[in-house]
Amino acid sequence: MFSSLILREFSRTTRRAFSCSTVSRAPGRVIFSGIQPTGVPHVSIELNLSAFCFANEIAQLGNYLGALSNWVKLQKTAAPDDELLFSIVGWHALTLPQDPETLATSRRDLLATLLAIGLDPKRSVLFHQDHVCAKLSGRDPFLSLSQNQAHTELAWILNCITPIGKLRRMTTWKTRLAASRNANNESEVDESLLNAGLFTYPVLQAADILAYRATHVPVGEDQTQHLELCRDLADIFNRTFPSSRPLFHLPSQLNTISRRILSLRDPTSKMSKSSPDLQSRILLTDTEAQIKSKIRSAVTDSIVGITYDPVARPGTSNLLTILAACTDDDVSEVVRRYEGKGHGHLKEDVAEAVEEMIKGPRAEFERIRHETAFLEEVARSGAEKARDRSEITMTQVRERLGLRR
Amino acid sequence: MFSSLILREFSRTTRRAFSCSTVSRAPGRVIFSGIQPTGVPHVSIELNLSAFCFANEIAQLGNYLGALSNWVKLQKTAAPDDELLFSIVGWHALTLPQDPETLATSRRDLLATLLAIGLDPKRSVLFHQDHVCAKLSGRDPFLSLSQNQAHTELAWILNCITPIGKLRRMTTWKTRLAASRNANNESEVDESLLNAGLFTYPVLQAADILAYRATHVPVGEDQTQHLELCRDLADIFNRTFPSSRPLFHLPSQLNTISRRILSLRDPTSKMSKSSPDLQSRILLTDTEAQIKSKIRSAVTDSIVGITYDPVARPGTSNLLTILAACTDDDVSEVVRRYEGKGHGHLKEDVAEAVEEMIKGPRAEFERIRHETAFLEEVARSGAEKARDRSEITMTQVRERLGLRR
Repeated sequence: MFSSLILREFSRTTRRAFSCSTVSRAPGRVIFSGIQPTGVPHVSIELNLSAFCFANEIAQLGNYLGALSNWVKLQKTAAPDDELLFSIVGWHALTLPQDPETLATSRRDLLATLLAIGLDPKRSVLFHQDHVCAKLSGRDPFLSLSQNQAHTELAWILNCITPIGKLRRMTTWKTRLAASRNANNESEVDESLLNAGLFTYPVLQAADILAYRATHVPVGEDQTQHLELCRDLADIFNRTFPSSRPLFHLPSQLNTISRRILSLRDPTSKMSKSSPDLQSRILLTDTEAQIKSKIRSAVTDSIVGITYDPVARPGTSNLLTILAACTDDDVSEVVRRYEGKGHGHLKEDVAEAVEEMIKGPRAEFERIRHETAFLEEVARSGAEKARDRSEITMTQVRERLGLRR
Repeated sequence: MFSSLILREFSRTTRRAFSCSTVSRAPGRVIFSGIQPTGVPHVSIELNLSAFCFANEIAQLGNYLGALSNWVKLQKTAAPDDELLFSIVGWHALTLPQDPETLATSRRDLLATLLAIGLDPKRSVLFHQDHVCAKLSGRDPFLSLSQNQAHTELAWILNCITPIGKLRRMTTWKTRLAASRNANNESEVDESLLNAGLFTYPVLQAADILAYRATHVPVGEDQTQHLELCRDLADIFNRTFPSSRPLFHLPSQLNTISRRILSLRDPTSKMSKSSPDLQSRILLTDTEAQIKSKIRSAVTDSIVGITYDPVARPGTSNLLTILAACTDDDVSEVVRRYEGKGHGHLKEDVAEAVEEMIKGPRAEFERIRHETAFLEEVARSGAEKARDRSEITMTQVRERLGLRR
């Protein structure tokens, strides 16, 4: 399922890709993460980007494969009794306007992507947050068993213990709002543009995590404040509804190393799905020729020679970052290899490394994306496992609240 | 099931109890209302109070039976093709702190009350908003079919199209917060005390209504702004996700006449469950002796004779209001009957009228509340019907959003 380069890359970077904020990797971790279906995944050539992609994919679609490949690494390095849950969080996508057709396609394609890059539905629970199986087969009403109301139900319950002030202090809604409005910065957007979904989505995110009593959450730095809120809410719940033992773990942050991948056309901004210029980014579906063309036309500079200087030479530096990520080298090491060489040489190598890295997943993606029955079965089975697990939590939540038979 | 007095009262007051804001009672109305389980229902002796009791039962527990009896009237006057859905909205109760044990009992007792006062589960769909059947019988996993995620799922979706500014303009959260904090008025509470549940509960309320594509909602005046929000959200959804025909009706308000019933001990404030003085209110479970004792000790004044003057004589006027409600007379008519008589006479008649009105429902309530298996079956069956109906809506909602298979 993988190109050999990717397989090698995964094993080599595993040790340094994750640093866990708990003292040690206790046995039986429950690892949860989610990603929004908001378009055909980018090849963010970056392999070490943050995984918990709830917040700002609209702004940073370059993170897609980076996040996802972190999940694959987690799958490979997890202990046998670790549980892994990875969710495509369609309900989060609704916090900003979406085209329904695009969303429907993205939702399916993202599951195909998870499989294509190597997530194994037998090892990891892969599921749609918004999954309702009843529609899957009209013939079998029992399929509606895999309805999972845990996420929105627990979100409502957590809403009732979330002070408005805490939500107001989150900075992510401003960032997302600014990005969705093409504002230059956050001061250009204010609360009058804000909907209650975007305002409260950190609570739904907390519910996503706590429904599975996750112990560890891979999360980028921009999401640290959301995980803090999640820990706060878990703690408030435990204290408000005490029992012989607290219901929720306070989930720990799995920090992931993240590098900033920039637009190939405007290297002062991030590689982003929302840019109108198709040449600015690489997609999982790009052919070798398209990759070559995009890298060749990448904006660099007219300075002779190759040096790493993100301020003075953002385009050139971006290519070096991409190459370093693909070959899992330090940038300084990569730069050394280009002594006396020029942009042409560098671009050729970058294109080759990118192609080498994505050709395996791309072929898998193209093969899987049309296997509708298989994808539906993976989704159904994942939703059932997720529901079974979250139902254990929710039964206890309802019991403690007094919402019981 | 009813005392004859109540039956008579229902038929006599039906015509004037409801005025519909639509031009005519179109065939095939879908009527939805909800009530919070927040304690043993009061006998609000008032029969014409507002029904849609989402907002401030904590403050006005006197409304309980008033609201519920309006539902019974609706059931009796509805056209054969009208659909009636009445929900015990446990999730709304969580917006203010609840004792889990009390909530669990209230939840069960409120269903018993609905049946005791004459709601017929064969005619009206009676269900718990938070119903999850899986727990009902561990032996039969298929019971979990009656999970109903429509309410919280649709609330999330509507959150994503609800401007924060609209929620801020709702006044009910201030009222509820003030009541829950025993504040003298709303200026004593501010947003720092507000949780996201209380702030967004009008959206959950809109979801409760729209999940069934209700056309008519019985609602008190204090809830008019919430129904306006619900209509706004239905309209925004229809416009944002257009199709050959709009998905949601804009539900109409069924105005209900409401009289203000005051505390028997402090007739300057409403009869309320939250008052520490048990003598201030009458419960459905009160015996005839308790009713007599409470009415006898009701605070009145030392003015000779009986006159209706809510400002100068609130206690006496409150007793007249109660009696008028019980006997379905105008207050002026009632006052005439007490010319030359005193408080003793009035109190005796009020106690008798209250006892006459509630003795039937009380006996039914005491009989039904311990029939656990029957109550569970009513709850399960209601939840299933509600789920089947809401699932039709939700399938179309998901389809329009792009959250489809």
